[in-house]
Amino acid sequence: MAPKYTVSYFPIKALAEPIRLLLSYGKIEFEDNRISSEEWPKYKDSMPMGQMPTLQIDDKVYYQSNAICRYLAKQMGLAGANDLEAMEIDIAVDSIHDFRLKVGPAHYETDETLKAKKYEELTAETIPFFLKKLEARAAANNGYMALGKLTWADFILTGIAGYLKLICHQDIFAENPNLKSVVDKVLALPAIEAWYAKSPKCDF
Amino acid sequence: MAPKYTVSYFPIKALAEPIRLLLSYGKIEFEDNRISSEEWPKYKDSMPMGQMPTLQIDDKVYYQSNAICRYLAKQMGLAGANDLEAMEIDIAVDSIHDFRLKVGPAHYETDETLKAKKYEELTAETIPFFLKKLEARAAANNGYMALGKLTWADFILTGIAGYLKLICHQDIFAENPNLKSVVDKVLALPAIEAWYAKSPKCDF
Repeated sequence: MAPKYTVSYFPIKALAEPIRLLLSYGKIEFEDNRISSEEWPKYKDSMPMGQMPTLQIDDKVYYQSNAICRYLAKQMGLAGANDLEAMEIDIAVDSIHDFRLKVGPAHYETDETLKAKKYEELTAETIPFFLKKLEARAAANNGYMALGKLTWADFILTGIAGYLKLICHQDIFAENPNLKSVVDKVLALPAIEAWYAKSPKCDF
Repeated sequence: MAPKYTVSYFPIKALAEPIRLLLSYGKIEFEDNRISSEEWPKYKDSMPMGQMPTLQIDDKVYYQSNAICRYLAKQMGLAGANDLEAMEIDIAVDSIHDFRLKVGPAHYETDETLKAKKYEELTAETIPFFLKKLEARAAANNGYMALGKLTWADFILTGIAGYLKLICHQDIFAENPNLKSVVDKVLALPAIEAWYAKSPKCDF
């Protein structure tokens, strides 16, 4: 019998969406377990690090979204042909997450004065810096994030694209055609089109 | 001719030390290029993402410390025997870095009032939470971070142990014997003893 896969996360895309996209790409059936913020306190203590997403495979619960994505990508031939290629993909993935981690704290800042100050710096420096670097990477890689071909780094960017727009307070793809091309190519994959035809709608 | 390896970083352990430890473990000679904070602005623009550490292998510069460590670990048989094992190690590594990323911003906070407030929460909740989880992981894995055996996750913890103590404002190993055992075992490896016999002294 095929193993049973369950993805648990909030009812948004964000960090779980790359996992859902990779499973969809690999035509692996999975339970899409969406836990609302209201229900979350009930479940938090049962999660290995008090966090989601998790991927349960039969009885075993795995966590850390990148670890899960890298594992799935290996099963699907999206993780590079050798160790050097795998490293190039990892570099791209971690650079995308660095961008997210630099901007995220401002989005969750509750002090409005501090928040405005943080976004002032982010909008003037950090966001343009990362977008320039990531756009250049996509341009140098034929509209992919690494190796000039489809890899799981493209699924990471596509999965968290809406979340990045949300926390950056801007359409990060508007002036970055090569980054946009990464996302467009993933979204045009038949298995991903099929996923979005049936999955709950959410912008981020 | 053997490839030439150069590690570039500030003159501290922190994120470069796991790379240096893995190279030492693999008996790979490398240039230990330490750039002071004063010199750093001169070099910043030449780094792929304006960041260090980097690992240069001959003419090619790689970045993102985890990507580099994972690559090196594969060459040294420290990255798991199969894809599921590799994922378990990645989960451990990312959990250690999550801890670092939760505490780090408080360490760099320049507003003293905000800093004190952040450390109040960290000391009461976040730091004990992560230490409990990581100690339990080490206990369940025979004094290693994953798989009950030596992997590159142990090199990550050992390399950033001093940095974690610095940013946590406490000896995180004092009451966590299994975590301490992870570090002790790595430090007792002959190749690592040899590295610390010759490398510049620094606590973090």
